[in-house]
Amino acid sequence: MSDRVYNFSAGPAVLPEPVLRDAQRDIWDIEGSGVGILEHSHRGKVFDGVIERAEADCRAIGSIPDNYRVLFLQGGASSQFFMVPANLLPDGATADYINTGSWSAKAIKEARLYGTVHVAASSEDDNFAFIPTPDQTRCSPNPVYVHFTSNNTIFGTQFRQAPDTPDGAFLVCDASSDIFSRRIDVSRYGLIYAGAQKNLGPAGVTLVILREDLLERPARELPTMLRYSTHAQKGSRYNTPPSFGIYLMGRVFRWILDQGGLDAIERRNRAKAQVLYDVLDGSGFWHPTAQVESRSMMNVCFRTPGEDLDRAFVEAAAREGFMSLKGHRSVGGMRASIYNAFPPEGCDALARFMRDFEARHG
Amino acid sequence: MSDRVYNFSAGPAVLPEPVLRDAQRDIWDIEGSGVGILEHSHRGKVFDGVIERAEADCRAIGSIPDNYRVLFLQGGASSQFFMVPANLLPDGATADYINTGSWSAKAIKEARLYGTVHVAASSEDDNFAFIPTPDQTRCSPNPVYVHFTSNNTIFGTQFRQAPDTPDGAFLVCDASSDIFSRRIDVSRYGLIYAGAQKNLGPAGVTLVILREDLLERPARELPTMLRYSTHAQKGSRYNTPPSFGIYLMGRVFRWILDQGGLDAIERRNRAKAQVLYDVLDGSGFWHPTAQVESRSMMNVCFRTPGEDLDRAFVEAAAREGFMSLKGHRSVGGMRASIYNAFPPEGCDALARFMRDFEARHG
Repeated sequence: MSDRVYNFSAGPAVLPEPVLRDAQRDIWDIEGSGVGILEHSHRGKVFDGVIERAEADCRAIGSIPDNYRVLFLQGGASSQFFMVPANLLPDGATADYINTGSWSAKAIKEARLYGTVHVAASSEDDNFAFIPTPDQTRCSPNPVYVHFTSNNTIFGTQFRQAPDTPDGAFLVCDASSDIFSRRIDVSRYGLIYAGAQKNLGPAGVTLVILREDLLERPARELPTMLRYSTHAQKGSRYNTPPSFGIYLMGRVFRWILDQGGLDAIERRNRAKAQVLYDVLDGSGFWHPTAQVESRSMMNVCFRTPGEDLDRAFVEAAAREGFMSLKGHRSVGGMRASIYNAFPPEGCDALARFMRDFEARHG
Repeated sequence: MSDRVYNFSAGPAVLPEPVLRDAQRDIWDIEGSGVGILEHSHRGKVFDGVIERAEADCRAIGSIPDNYRVLFLQGGASSQFFMVPANLLPDGATADYINTGSWSAKAIKEARLYGTVHVAASSEDDNFAFIPTPDQTRCSPNPVYVHFTSNNTIFGTQFRQAPDTPDGAFLVCDASSDIFSRRIDVSRYGLIYAGAQKNLGPAGVTLVILREDLLERPARELPTMLRYSTHAQKGSRYNTPPSFGIYLMGRVFRWILDQGGLDAIERRNRAKAQVLYDVLDGSGFWHPTAQVESRSMMNVCFRTPGEDLDRAFVEAAAREGFMSLKGHRSVGGMRASIYNAFPPEGCDALARFMRDFEARHG
């Protein structure tokens, strides 16, 4: 029996319990080495095995082509907001960005330090309640790349498929909140980045998958640590990497493979979200905030008929062991974050609780 | 009884066992919250307590004055190599650097991207076997700051006291490998930085202590994540911080206080190093590589009479449970890294092993 609650945190978020059990053991002594995972040299044999296995499993999960590099960096997606244009957007060139919420807006702000940003589409006028369709997206004539945020944690929206790009442009994706939650065709992208703390592991490690040829055209001179080429040449070990984060991400990768890989994970995530959306669509009591065709499988955002009732819901839920359901202040209401590691039975239990709550207050 | 070995790794390095035991428990469920430390929101009450306590304990240990900020950043000392000049060295201005080894040299290289570097002293001609004295140090007339590396892991040297600075210049210190290993007068510094993975915690979190007034004179426009002011204004939570690293660093801080603070830690470290230097000085068999007056309390570097014997020593030691004693390739021989958390009985045991080895091979 677990004394753990259902944790709907938007990130850092719940991790698979078998991974936590492994970590508890390996912090003391990993692989009978007599040394814990936190204390191993990042250049020793034990960590060689950890990082090599993590990369191999990552490649297996995403069917990542050989001409892509897998990097484990620090600084979160917030650092990628500037590292992408710093490395890839030359002075005077243009990059296209699709603005679907706070994270896109921050990425746009940092890119403007380096080049021209063309906002190819935005859902800002509708408080980011939808994902712009291809028809609503107008790219510039010759962008270096097109950047989008595949899932928007705050507004509970998610791209169904990656946007189109003009000829010659490559696609850049901030996939922090839905990486490896569903199948992905990596070959369509130039660069994918994701902070680990939602679907992949702990805060403090960032996965970057990038096409090898992009390393050959640095946009400008940069400090050593800010160049993708530094980390690619040194296998993410130019300096001491966040070794525990890489270890834990590797364990999560193995857990994803154990679940059956992305086909199985996507089915599982789809079913989890459906359980909650079925409740929301089942009566007029609930007000899901994202438009139907843009709904996220990762973050289910909704309101009751009033703010007082929203508060009562969050408090009553917490008493029953459903934690961190309060929505982000810019949307209000509730948000159930149900990333990969969130258990299906937690969605079932929340759905029952919601129906009970509606019966009492509807 | 512990199944753990004596781990002389130069970093990531051994951690206090009570801290590891706490982490094993808290990874599953911290403070009865039903959620593990890795899975808590960085904006929730549990993590509020973790980061506030970590900062308070850090301030208590270092007697850090109120006009200094304590930041928990990512990217290691290698990122501070460029963040220091990027934030603090205006175009056309000069910074002085003391070159005492590989880490100083890397810091110098990054600073040259932003301003003029004057090397005020260097021990490079003697393979960095000593720390330049004040007499050997020639500062430029008007540097913005003077930068030094307080302890040199590779060469086993350590400053006895911080260098002097010309009027108007502030002191910057890379203290990655000896932070909080001895008393420190923070008020003498403008900025101190330290990657955690030697004396403070796991890889992936960097402690930065800086004087508040330095936040008010940014040298240039920088991306949001690269500005010290961003992290100072947001209490190290502008974006998701490396929350587990901060948690663990906080536990190490508490352990340091439990040991009696820096007075006690310094006595303990001094005694630990003395045990090994006594063996090295006790016969002509051993060749300590650092000059006597520059010897480090953290990294004890030495050779036997020959390279074959060095190899035999490292192998025989490993069989007896003394791990990671091989020296860095640029010095050769052996290196015993004995940071704060390395237990005194490990130094005693190694000293016995060294005497036995000498008796067999001397």
